[in-house]
Amino acid sequence: MQQKVTLSEKEMPRQWYNLAADLPSPIQPPLGPDGQPIKPEMLEAVFPGNLIEQEMSPQRWIDIPEGILEILYRWRPTPLQRAYTLEKILDTPARIYYKNESVSPPGSHKPNTAVAQAWYNKEFGIKKLTTETGAGQWGSALSFACSLLGLEAKIYMVRISFDQKPYRKTMMQTWGGKCVPSPSEETQTGRDILAKHPDTPGSLGIAISEAIEEAVSDKSGQTRYSLGSVLNHVMLHQTIIGLETKKQLEKIGVKKVDSVIGCVGGGSNFAGIAFPFIYDKINGSDIDIIPVEPQSCPTMTRAPYVYDHGDTAKMTPLMAMHSLGHGFIPPPIHAGGLRYHGVAPLISQSINDGLLTPEAIHQLECYEAAMTFARTEGIIVAPETSHAVASAIRQAKRAKEEGKEKVILFNLSGHGLMDLLGYQKYFAGELEDYALPEEDLKESLRSIENLPKPQKMSVSEV
Amino acid sequence: MQQKVTLSEKEMPRQWYNLAADLPSPIQPPLGPDGQPIKPEMLEAVFPGNLIEQEMSPQRWIDIPEGILEILYRWRPTPLQRAYTLEKILDTPARIYYKNESVSPPGSHKPNTAVAQAWYNKEFGIKKLTTETGAGQWGSALSFACSLLGLEAKIYMVRISFDQKPYRKTMMQTWGGKCVPSPSEETQTGRDILAKHPDTPGSLGIAISEAIEEAVSDKSGQTRYSLGSVLNHVMLHQTIIGLETKKQLEKIGVKKVDSVIGCVGGGSNFAGIAFPFIYDKINGSDIDIIPVEPQSCPTMTRAPYVYDHGDTAKMTPLMAMHSLGHGFIPPPIHAGGLRYHGVAPLISQSINDGLLTPEAIHQLECYEAAMTFARTEGIIVAPETSHAVASAIRQAKRAKEEGKEKVILFNLSGHGLMDLLGYQKYFAGELEDYALPEEDLKESLRSIENLPKPQKMSVSEV
Repeated sequence: MQQKVTLSEKEMPRQWYNLAADLPSPIQPPLGPDGQPIKPEMLEAVFPGNLIEQEMSPQRWIDIPEGILEILYRWRPTPLQRAYTLEKILDTPARIYYKNESVSPPGSHKPNTAVAQAWYNKEFGIKKLTTETGAGQWGSALSFACSLLGLEAKIYMVRISFDQKPYRKTMMQTWGGKCVPSPSEETQTGRDILAKHPDTPGSLGIAISEAIEEAVSDKSGQTRYSLGSVLNHVMLHQTIIGLETKKQLEKIGVKKVDSVIGCVGGGSNFAGIAFPFIYDKINGSDIDIIPVEPQSCPTMTRAPYVYDHGDTAKMTPLMAMHSLGHGFIPPPIHAGGLRYHGVAPLISQSINDGLLTPEAIHQLECYEAAMTFARTEGIIVAPETSHAVASAIRQAKRAKEEGKEKVILFNLSGHGLMDLLGYQKYFAGELEDYALPEEDLKESLRSIENLPKPQKMSVSEV
Repeated sequence: MQQKVTLSEKEMPRQWYNLAADLPSPIQPPLGPDGQPIKPEMLEAVFPGNLIEQEMSPQRWIDIPEGILEILYRWRPTPLQRAYTLEKILDTPARIYYKNESVSPPGSHKPNTAVAQAWYNKEFGIKKLTTETGAGQWGSALSFACSLLGLEAKIYMVRISFDQKPYRKTMMQTWGGKCVPSPSEETQTGRDILAKHPDTPGSLGIAISEAIEEAVSDKSGQTRYSLGSVLNHVMLHQTIIGLETKKQLEKIGVKKVDSVIGCVGGGSNFAGIAFPFIYDKINGSDIDIIPVEPQSCPTMTRAPYVYDHGDTAKMTPLMAMHSLGHGFIPPPIHAGGLRYHGVAPLISQSINDGLLTPEAIHQLECYEAAMTFARTEGIIVAPETSHAVASAIRQAKRAKEEGKEKVILFNLSGHGLMDLLGYQKYFAGELEDYALPEEDLKESLRSIENLPKPQKMSVSEV
């Protein structure tokens, strides 16, 4: 029994897939403060020109530069594995496959775009990248990428995580990244906040503001900002995951996948596995594509499709997305990477176009699924990834009820070895379910009632 | 430029290599309390019959059962990678290859034997395995293996590590293992020690005694003890590492390796990469085979070849090995897995037969090497593995001085994501070098002066 499908470096895809080329309704552009679509030059202080171009590209296939491939080869192509033991325990007629992104040195899918972004910035003459990090996965991945490409990395880490997870800072340092707690004394934003609230635990919103401020205020023009999710070019870089998977399925003669599953915060790992399958769905294939979110941060299942800011401090343009409101603060679930108020515009639009069937799952069900997975397949998954595992198990149980021989595929976006606190609480009987208080949700949604609405056009209207 | 060489599951070796079949001088048997070679039946309460047989086997090649292969396939064959960037930074004419064992779910080479041991025990009708763990790598690997094979695992973890590294316990629990701090209230040994020294930090010696006591005192006969290093059958199971490596080198046309390097505590990861190359050396090939140890625990470079106990409490038979004395307590370096007073009999005898050139390196040089490696190759290695990296860098620098195009191979035995404390101290400028006090060494060696000596026979004498 073959346990996994591997590909050689030569078999790795040479192009990324851009879903923007194929979505049925037209792309909703980001809007500036004046409510008008922003122009590329307005982003030039924040991102390098080549990535701005990629962000707005309508091209379906985009070549992966050789320099990026050579770094990805260090751990890619990643294995596609079959969860035989899990299938057996669930007594399901379904076959369950998972793409194992946990084998990268930082332990997740994040380096796929970190390496690409660092490479394009370097090409553009940039010497230093700034970013924010919450749980630490993204900051680690960007430090890793900058280290391999000889760029400086500066990471603003939300203070409460910085204090709770000292080893994440150590990881970043080992790769040469400079990690400071946010708010910091290093930016005007940080100093202003510290003056008023010296004991603040910080937030992703503040950290983003600090990282952007440092990038745009470098007079030498050699610093830019880097984002680990949400944006079109980030989704693009992650499609290598799904494109490899298709080759691997082909190798073992699997012609049809019934369910494709990924967890969603900003949406990058889901986009990675799912976009190449959305292409098939648009072209007539019958696939159930399931983005999974925490019940306590129900962006896709409960939030309206609106124009909203990507950050709490409203420094980013308005983006067309399902949003709980830029001021929404989700309960403190362990899947820190899924605690985001919005979701990538390309995913939001796919939902709106009826291509996806989002699902929301409670924290406890996710940890129970992760436990079952660890004891059958042997991998301790990240708290974020546990949402995809839980959804795959739901699908496999449904297949049993229906007596259907389905093929289920999910993205194993990362291992949980740096985030074992949730598991520890699970065993201590201290893990909370964190149901979202309805009143909190309503209040946050009221705060964005007056923001512009994206146009909802079907193909026939265009 | 190809970054790594992969093998398919079909290409994985089907047999382990047993060095005992080829060593020039005869194997020195373990001795019982009476000074006579122990008989297999004396081990039956501790190990299952099939592993005792393997421990004493003179056969050169031993088939790997299909049931073990199927579990190893989940992460094996592991990649063989080329350290291009490290070579460039060192400006060396040498080519540096490393076998990446860090991709296993527990993050090290340890599951290679944990899976095999659990499988053989299960075949023998055993339901539960007991073991000890210090830093936690071995306890995690055995929990992982027992989980996948449906055995119970009970791990006695040295109390000071248990308290300092709570997440290691969580890892073991997630895989269903029961981990208790040692000394514990669960064995007579533990209770006696706690009565006298309620605040003891514990030791590996005590933990081994507790684990063996629990195994041998189970009246049902369904519990056995499992050891993660030192013994012949453990070395055997690890040879899959070197055997895969040979196939991978062949694939890229590398006909000759000049240096083979691995770090050594008990010796299992070194044995894994090196034994198949020792076979070549015995058969006339000119290879430098380098086991690397911490300068603060210089078993191979400073200790005599004697008969000594494997544990502090003298519960194990006497084994012919280089030993600093079973009472030796090395300085608290971060490479906990290398803090062992002895070294595997097969490695000891190889040293004695002139087949190896051991090397001892200080902690600071190792961390500096690990830092260089992380920033060039992108992998944060375990503190143990940093010794192999440091030695490989020494060899590469030597090649530059000599202007020689050497091929250097080392075993990357594990990642360091669960053991970042040493890196943290490095950045804080608090990492000690821990030179071994000469007086401590002399005192410990005096304590074993009167133990039996192995016969030193060269081939011609036999």
